[in-house]
Amino acid sequence: MSAPIVHGGGITEAAARFGGRFEEWLDLSTGINPRPATLPDVPQQAWHRLPDRLTVDRAREAAASHYATNGVQPLPVPGTQSVIQLLPRLVAAGRRVAVFGPTYGEYTRVLLAAGFAVDQVERAEDLTPDHGLAVLVNPNNPTGRAFAPGHILEIAGLMKANGGVLVVDEAFGDLQPELSVAGRVGENDNLIVFRSFGKFFGLAGLRLGFVVANDAVLDGFREWLGPWAVSGPALVISTALMAGDTGVIAAGILERRAGLDAVLDHAGLKRIGGTGLFVLVEHAEAGALHRQLCEARILTRKFDYAPRWLRIGLAPDADGDLRLAEALRSVAMRPSGAI
Amino acid sequence: MSAPIVHGGGITEAAARFGGRFEEWLDLSTGINPRPATLPDVPQQAWHRLPDRLTVDRAREAAASHYATNGVQPLPVPGTQSVIQLLPRLVAAGRRVAVFGPTYGEYTRVLLAAGFAVDQVERAEDLTPDHGLAVLVNPNNPTGRAFAPGHILEIAGLMKANGGVLVVDEAFGDLQPELSVAGRVGENDNLIVFRSFGKFFGLAGLRLGFVVANDAVLDGFREWLGPWAVSGPALVISTALMAGDTGVIAAGILERRAGLDAVLDHAGLKRIGGTGLFVLVEHAEAGALHRQLCEARILTRKFDYAPRWLRIGLAPDADGDLRLAEALRSVAMRPSGAI
Repeated sequence: MSAPIVHGGGITEAAARFGGRFEEWLDLSTGINPRPATLPDVPQQAWHRLPDRLTVDRAREAAASHYATNGVQPLPVPGTQSVIQLLPRLVAAGRRVAVFGPTYGEYTRVLLAAGFAVDQVERAEDLTPDHGLAVLVNPNNPTGRAFAPGHILEIAGLMKANGGVLVVDEAFGDLQPELSVAGRVGENDNLIVFRSFGKFFGLAGLRLGFVVANDAVLDGFREWLGPWAVSGPALVISTALMAGDTGVIAAGILERRAGLDAVLDHAGLKRIGGTGLFVLVEHAEAGALHRQLCEARILTRKFDYAPRWLRIGLAPDADGDLRLAEALRSVAMRPSGAI
Repeated sequence: MSAPIVHGGGITEAAARFGGRFEEWLDLSTGINPRPATLPDVPQQAWHRLPDRLTVDRAREAAASHYATNGVQPLPVPGTQSVIQLLPRLVAAGRRVAVFGPTYGEYTRVLLAAGFAVDQVERAEDLTPDHGLAVLVNPNNPTGRAFAPGHILEIAGLMKANGGVLVVDEAFGDLQPELSVAGRVGENDNLIVFRSFGKFFGLAGLRLGFVVANDAVLDGFREWLGPWAVSGPALVISTALMAGDTGVIAAGILERRAGLDAVLDHAGLKRIGGTGLFVLVEHAEAGALHRQLCEARILTRKFDYAPRWLRIGLAPDADGDLRLAEALRSVAMRPSGAI
């Protein structure tokens, strides 16, 4: 059994190591909108009954519109993770997997655990006919690297020529709709797009994502997940919020992102990438900086494979920005080499 | 791909066929408590954040106590269905599966779809050394047939002698704790118990169940489902409700069940089984009776494999009982043979 990856959201663990009550911590370790959308009323029936087809169909309609899928009805799933777990079923035994990386670690973890050889690739030229599945996170987590849709469709074509599939994870794509290929699935039958509901709407606890793909792929995922995989509240909440003013949510995120940028720039930290929901910073001693911030009860995200990187998410408000600024100033004032 | 089974909860489909607005229907087709437990406050963090280990651990503690597992910490899963989907992974290729039946159809459907030969068995004596997995729903749905714990442990022993596993689904077990083997898992390492949260608490839309089993089995399910499989609201709601007064909930169910019994007895219908949450009725023309009740906007559950059976769930209140009584009286007053 492969060890779970240390993900964002580990305040409990951080507090156990560095002290402080849970509520005292400022969690900048995730890529989740820190200002959750206001929850719509959830009718009692959504809690009480098994979600019926009408409820599911409404959620699919709303997602088709929100993700601009050109008529493809996305399949709701209980979080993107639930379908990452199923990716091994899409690859014939003996074929290799290509993951454009470095990126979100769960793809490689799950596919390795299922016995596949996984190659981390950088460019389309790195793909070979052995690859039965390629995974591309766009924009990428944590680097923010973005592939243009035209290039992604070229990659899909390369994969198709060898009977392979391309998964594009657009978990952080809500703020850059111009990058999305969710509307191109209809004409690219080996293209599968994953969308995350919880990050943009700030409701990661709900466990909801959508898959945009051809009918055969969606039938497969539906069969493997089984009936009623997504909770009733998740379906009705997403239906309502996607029909609401998502521009206000986007503006709120960008305002928070501007606040974070100002703090980082003021502290002299070098921003080397990011998306609307996080910034990637390069620092000679990122591990020590991570630890110092933990001592100030601020959790960020470090990377074993990239010891100079630190990913920093959005604070919920200007007070959070100031707290980060203050902590960074304290770090900077220590004698050289002390962090 | 195997066709999905027609389950309870199909008011949308019934209304499309028989007419009437969704809200006009009385849904007696499920085994879900029609009076949902009052929802506790769900803290915003449960919606916002990925469920962390502390939240999961608290839910496990509460479930260990509620299900009296003798210290085994049950694994929360997004509905029993999610682990039924994974049962094929517990059986070596080439071995057969035994399902004590007739029973809930998803076990056979999922295992057949995965390529296993499935034998419907009635008694422990029907098990053979070929069986790598046996499934027993206790008390059974829809018959209400109950196996005593001692007998179940004998069956577990038989299965173990041949390297097999016994799954006991106690989805309808909350009202008959004396039947449960959830407390015997520690000393029977090939015994796996499934518990359903939504039926007893009336919150099926939440998608929550628990698996009680040895650590290796739980590690497997956790690995296959992946991290954050259960929503944050489901975890905090179950934690709170399991710590609350479950006796009041049980009493409410039994009161509703008594109301249903009175209606059925008054109508001269023959009760041949059931659990606290539903009654199984035998009737010479159960299919016609089902249809007549649909015309009165009352949905019950019929069974293709048993044309004389009708499963009738609990109405939410005495008005519902009276409505069922009225519909049954209309049916009885038709000329003989008219239904």
